[in-house]
Amino acid sequence: MSVTAAKGFTAAGIAAGIKESGGPDLALVVNEGPRLAAAGVFTANRVKAAPVLWSEQVVKGGQISAVVLNSGGANACTGPRGFQDTHATAEKAAAVLGGSAGEIAVASTGLIGVYLPMDKLLPGIEKAAAELSAHGGEKAAIAIKTTDTVHKTAVAQSAAGWTVGGMAKGAGMLAPGLATMLVVLTTDADADAAALDRALRAATRTTFDRVDSDGCMSTNDTVLLLASGASGTVPDEAEFAEAVRTVCDDLARQLIGDAEGASKDIRIEVVGAATEDDAVEVGRSLARNNLLKCAIHGEDPNWGRVLSAIGTTSAAFDPDRLNVAINGVWVCRDGSVGDDRDLVDMRYREVRITADLAEGTESATIWANDLTADYVHENSAYSS
Amino acid sequence: MSVTAAKGFTAAGIAAGIKESGGPDLALVVNEGPRLAAAGVFTANRVKAAPVLWSEQVVKGGQISAVVLNSGGANACTGPRGFQDTHATAEKAAAVLGGSAGEIAVASTGLIGVYLPMDKLLPGIEKAAAELSAHGGEKAAIAIKTTDTVHKTAVAQSAAGWTVGGMAKGAGMLAPGLATMLVVLTTDADADAAALDRALRAATRTTFDRVDSDGCMSTNDTVLLLASGASGTVPDEAEFAEAVRTVCDDLARQLIGDAEGASKDIRIEVVGAATEDDAVEVGRSLARNNLLKCAIHGEDPNWGRVLSAIGTTSAAFDPDRLNVAINGVWVCRDGSVGDDRDLVDMRYREVRITADLAEGTESATIWANDLTADYVHENSAYSS
Repeated sequence: MSVTAAKGFTAAGIAAGIKESGGPDLALVVNEGPRLAAAGVFTANRVKAAPVLWSEQVVKGGQISAVVLNSGGANACTGPRGFQDTHATAEKAAAVLGGSAGEIAVASTGLIGVYLPMDKLLPGIEKAAAELSAHGGEKAAIAIKTTDTVHKTAVAQSAAGWTVGGMAKGAGMLAPGLATMLVVLTTDADADAAALDRALRAATRTTFDRVDSDGCMSTNDTVLLLASGASGTVPDEAEFAEAVRTVCDDLARQLIGDAEGASKDIRIEVVGAATEDDAVEVGRSLARNNLLKCAIHGEDPNWGRVLSAIGTTSAAFDPDRLNVAINGVWVCRDGSVGDDRDLVDMRYREVRITADLAEGTESATIWANDLTADYVHENSAYSS
Repeated sequence: MSVTAAKGFTAAGIAAGIKESGGPDLALVVNEGPRLAAAGVFTANRVKAAPVLWSEQVVKGGQISAVVLNSGGANACTGPRGFQDTHATAEKAAAVLGGSAGEIAVASTGLIGVYLPMDKLLPGIEKAAAELSAHGGEKAAIAIKTTDTVHKTAVAQSAAGWTVGGMAKGAGMLAPGLATMLVVLTTDADADAAALDRALRAATRTTFDRVDSDGCMSTNDTVLLLASGASGTVPDEAEFAEAVRTVCDDLARQLIGDAEGASKDIRIEVVGAATEDDAVEVGRSLARNNLLKCAIHGEDPNWGRVLSAIGTTSAAFDPDRLNVAINGVWVCRDGSVGDDRDLVDMRYREVRITADLAEGTESATIWANDLTADYVHENSAYSS
């Protein structure tokens, strides 16, 4: 499945020696055509990794013939040398695969502030190219893992004969705008770059952009959508947009489900908002409130922490009309003590917080994780 | 010392039975005059506890004759009943101490969303009044602790004959705007309410408002400054402002030093900013970045996390000109790899992060803590 579920794509994942562990760390995804249409969405972080700066330019041309992805190093905050390394990566891939370096996207993930071992990465591209296969999607998904415990793939198929497939990595530094998250989606639908861009932006706005595991926005987030046109079918625009959204949503949920140290997935539903922006702002403030995240970890329906987080936002609400439910029990009504908190059952991994602003009819859902001692352990030792 | 360091004040701290532990939980601070001037600064959280709503009104009159403070319950998100409880507290104190309930400030701290046990609190006021003493400041400071491991007091004395003293509590839900922090400052300087207000606002802006332990703004933050005029000396305004700032700064540092679960105090200095607002915004984004806080806990000079946090702000900067020092070692220069990170010694409790935006001459210092497994443990079990 993964990026090779759609016709017209080959992929490979290999161990190039970039990671000290010796594990898989280099992936190639190649669009075999006939089309080379592509769109991309990148991190909103103003400190952008070299591969993001590079790939943003590539996407502007509307064509991507191949994507080179590496784990084991983010190539972020590496200055001119880092950018030259990304450029050399694209040049090498173009030399090996044919075509222009200007149509090769590059994505990197791992530690910020270290140079990539180009003496290993460049030979790795040759090795990966030799292993390209129409069944290589799984191996590519495995090669981009960092602290991910599982690889993430998803697929949606249309009765009209086309397919959207994808892979993702991301477990930490996982917050919107976008969430160190690399995603490559592929489709054999016959869609041009503009159509891909519309579908991708609409899909990421309500999926990856509403995932907030730890409030920390990455320097490297990249979501690419490549179309080969190999199905020979021009998709219905609405159906195609929904297929892309479905695959993005599936991958986004997998990211939350595998977040560093997490023991709970928190579905934050903000309802009764005056505007969608208000709902998103409130949802994000809950997603980033460490005290609330600790309470959820402790299976403690501490709704006071929900209200104190709502109170820090600029959303429209009256403190005396706020209602909060945890797993369906309205523990806070009209800004004060509601139903018996002992009725809340929080034993399962998914916890649902519903915050009713009682101001209107708009809503938004944000996915977050609890804050755990395991998260602290994993992230206090990561680079050492 | 504490709130009775200045002449004209008595205080007491007793166990009223509000806390299940049976520990001290009720404090009284009484201004014996001749002046009853006062100023106050309160939480910027839009969800405000009943005692905050009450005391904001009291402060508007410019006079406070006494402050009743309780731990063991925040009386926040308790609706009309909670406000009636605060009102009854002020009425009881007025009946016992004399004077008007409209000049009695009330402050509460503890769990949000539970009603106070008024059958214990009201008799406690009588008991505390019977123990009022010019040496009672220490006991008052002890009675307002919640998860604080130590009580916090500070004092500054002027050669002109007046004194500023104070007490504070706060260990979690500790973030600006203001930081569950209750602070009572007293002075025997002969200053009116307007002068107190100017000094207090100037002092809190660069002290309590620049403490950000866990990014979570409380519903109950209250800082009061009471003047008795008992020294008979009208203070020089600049000297008085500096004394108030010194006491606030001392107490703010004590709050950070005792923050829940913390093993490191992080001094975040943002320099080279175009504006002070930019410096504060960048400082806060570092203070609230969980990945950076975990890295500091792990004694890992992970400057990439500093840059990724700066990148989420709207401050003026060029990513290729950013410089970062950790404990004086410039590990990041011009947005890229700088001096050897192995030179950074992070064994001690205080860690200094200097972020140079290379855009101007403005600066700001924010104090924060690391994120630890102990913080998670303490806050996943607090209400259960």
